[in-house]
Amino acid sequence: MWSNVLYIDLDTGEHQVKDRADLFDKYLGGTGVATQLLLEECPPGTDPFSPEAPIIFSIGPLNTIFPCVSKTVSMFKSPMTGELGESHAGGRLSMAMRFAGYDSIVIKGRAEKPCYLSIHDNEVKLKDATSIWNVSSVEVIGKILRQVEPGKGRRSIMRIGEAGVNMVRYANVNVDTYRHFGRLGLGAVFGSKNLKAIVISGTEDVEIPDIAPYSKMYNKLYDAVVDTEVMDKYHDLGTAANINVLNQLKGLPTRNLKQSGFENAENISGEYFADNLLLRKIACSNCPIGCIHIAMLKTTFQKGHEFEVNHISYDYELIYSLGTNLGINLAEDVLRLIERCERYGLDIMSTGGVLAWATESYERDLITPPDTLGIALRWGDTNSYLKMID
Amino acid sequence: MWSNVLYIDLDTGEHQVKDRADLFDKYLGGTGVATQLLLEECPPGTDPFSPEAPIIFSIGPLNTIFPCVSKTVSMFKSPMTGELGESHAGGRLSMAMRFAGYDSIVIKGRAEKPCYLSIHDNEVKLKDATSIWNVSSVEVIGKILRQVEPGKGRRSIMRIGEAGVNMVRYANVNVDTYRHFGRLGLGAVFGSKNLKAIVISGTEDVEIPDIAPYSKMYNKLYDAVVDTEVMDKYHDLGTAANINVLNQLKGLPTRNLKQSGFENAENISGEYFADNLLLRKIACSNCPIGCIHIAMLKTTFQKGHEFEVNHISYDYELIYSLGTNLGINLAEDVLRLIERCERYGLDIMSTGGVLAWATESYERDLITPPDTLGIALRWGDTNSYLKMID
Repeated sequence: MWSNVLYIDLDTGEHQVKDRADLFDKYLGGTGVATQLLLEECPPGTDPFSPEAPIIFSIGPLNTIFPCVSKTVSMFKSPMTGELGESHAGGRLSMAMRFAGYDSIVIKGRAEKPCYLSIHDNEVKLKDATSIWNVSSVEVIGKILRQVEPGKGRRSIMRIGEAGVNMVRYANVNVDTYRHFGRLGLGAVFGSKNLKAIVISGTEDVEIPDIAPYSKMYNKLYDAVVDTEVMDKYHDLGTAANINVLNQLKGLPTRNLKQSGFENAENISGEYFADNLLLRKIACSNCPIGCIHIAMLKTTFQKGHEFEVNHISYDYELIYSLGTNLGINLAEDVLRLIERCERYGLDIMSTGGVLAWATESYERDLITPPDTLGIALRWGDTNSYLKMID
Repeated sequence: MWSNVLYIDLDTGEHQVKDRADLFDKYLGGTGVATQLLLEECPPGTDPFSPEAPIIFSIGPLNTIFPCVSKTVSMFKSPMTGELGESHAGGRLSMAMRFAGYDSIVIKGRAEKPCYLSIHDNEVKLKDATSIWNVSSVEVIGKILRQVEPGKGRRSIMRIGEAGVNMVRYANVNVDTYRHFGRLGLGAVFGSKNLKAIVISGTEDVEIPDIAPYSKMYNKLYDAVVDTEVMDKYHDLGTAANINVLNQLKGLPTRNLKQSGFENAENISGEYFADNLLLRKIACSNCPIGCIHIAMLKTTFQKGHEFEVNHISYDYELIYSLGTNLGINLAEDVLRLIERCERYGLDIMSTGGVLAWATESYERDLITPPDTLGIALRWGDTNSYLKMID
């Protein structure tokens, strides 16, 4: 059991399911299996953007069965590095794969025209995505697919934004709005395959062979997470708690890593976000921690009290990438930058890295206005950074 | 056309539709017809809580056809006054009645057990509401019915909270979350009939006999509302704009009407709400103004940044009733009081009036702690007022 691999060929739209107990028995977790599948499917020299390049998702035997085991791994050849691409995402994806009965999914080929995959239990369909291909915002894509696809409550929706469609080499894949396959450009690989989104859900029941010892172990792990203080900081302040801590330890990436501490860290710390901007906390399926912190950003777009309201998930990595490492002094400005990257589906750590590098290069006259489309780059200048992202 | 009256008998669950062109041709608008229907259905001496007492809803021929004509009238014998009960509500109700093809609805009798009415086009069903009868919060009732009933996007949901179920004589009927049949106790009449809610939707197309002059008139009215400044204040600040104006004119009900101006009016003015608490503005169906102002109230309910977030519709009448007339100094406290009344489904103007009267009486020793369940009443003491509402 739990060794089904779903193979999908985007060239033909066909699929098959193989029992790969050989892999699942031999290799450890979803990552072990996915690595082997990549070895099988992606021979040396494969162009990451070629139809032959595979996209592999995998969960392991513990996913959804024990608390906190909620991540899915994606494995691909990275268009960013030309090396192994590995990225992990939470959300509801591992639950949806478990319910649908697929432990791994291997996607190859290139669809003739824009498409998305609709996977509900045994029903695997390649659907036309022409009408949503150029919808830039990943949030809007999510809203549309929630309307037209079934599986509410037991589904996961992955999609790419404008960055992925344009094969920006650090485009991400958005998973269930607030989580991502962030690193190494999986979004660009989606784009190269004309694949806009994947919706997956299932109704399968999960049978536990020996329920008594399982429950005992489950409760032990659950209590270790919930009844002790080990995980408190992740629920209270979230990973953003690290900003102040690392600032004190002199380990906070600041101004393109020129500094290891930021004089205004307090103003964009996890404490500041939680006290002033935090709206709610949510959890990935099957995780009792609930570390996803969602802030509200209210922006006036017109006189007469006309507001746009955005809900934005923030984390330590995002705050240093688009905050301290760019010398940004206001938490609201960090949110504005995060929101802009999210909208396009850009990996925020890479985007922040590029902007930080560009700012230092600009400062040292290594790049000049013609290189930046005329935009002057200065530490802490949010509006210039927003223009750069656009 | 447009003269259908739906008669529903809660005793038997049966219904019939009669063409009452005689009424619609003779009397002006929904209010005229509803008044006549009340005259027919509610002879002198009828107990407002008896099965014989009717609940009447009516729209007029202009509803949904011309801009801003978005209100439905309810007509009943008021358990609050023993006199004519008339209350108007916006939301989506008049649209839903038009689409369902009913210009008036007359409800009589008393259901044997808790029920709600499910009206979708010609399908009129009395459904069991036992499981939701004691769900206090009108917000939760709305969420449940949105899940189980069809008609999304073309429906309206009326429901009562704990106040209506307990036949509090100034219980209201909540319409589509943010609007109400607020005054004179229609919610209590619902409660007396074991009627928890009414869901109504329809798919009928509305045919306009002579489209060219209609369009001309429509556009003229639309422009009068949108392209001039006449209605600007209702969209910008909403009716709450009146707080500062009436304070200057010395016409602001303050401390049980002992004063006509409030020294802290600025702090709970429409300007303050819009600048600091306003989240968004919405409109009733068919209304281009969008005067419904919704504020966000974020309340910490536990250490560790655990927030409850409520979206609360505010208006001038609510702010003076639970604000200036009680001597409340903080806008957030006004929202807390509004939210509490909303949850139970209490008419806010009446609740505010009762609390203001009680506070002055308490101040003058006309009532004493035994009368207030031991709660000391003082102007501006939000927590005592919250306890009183509970």
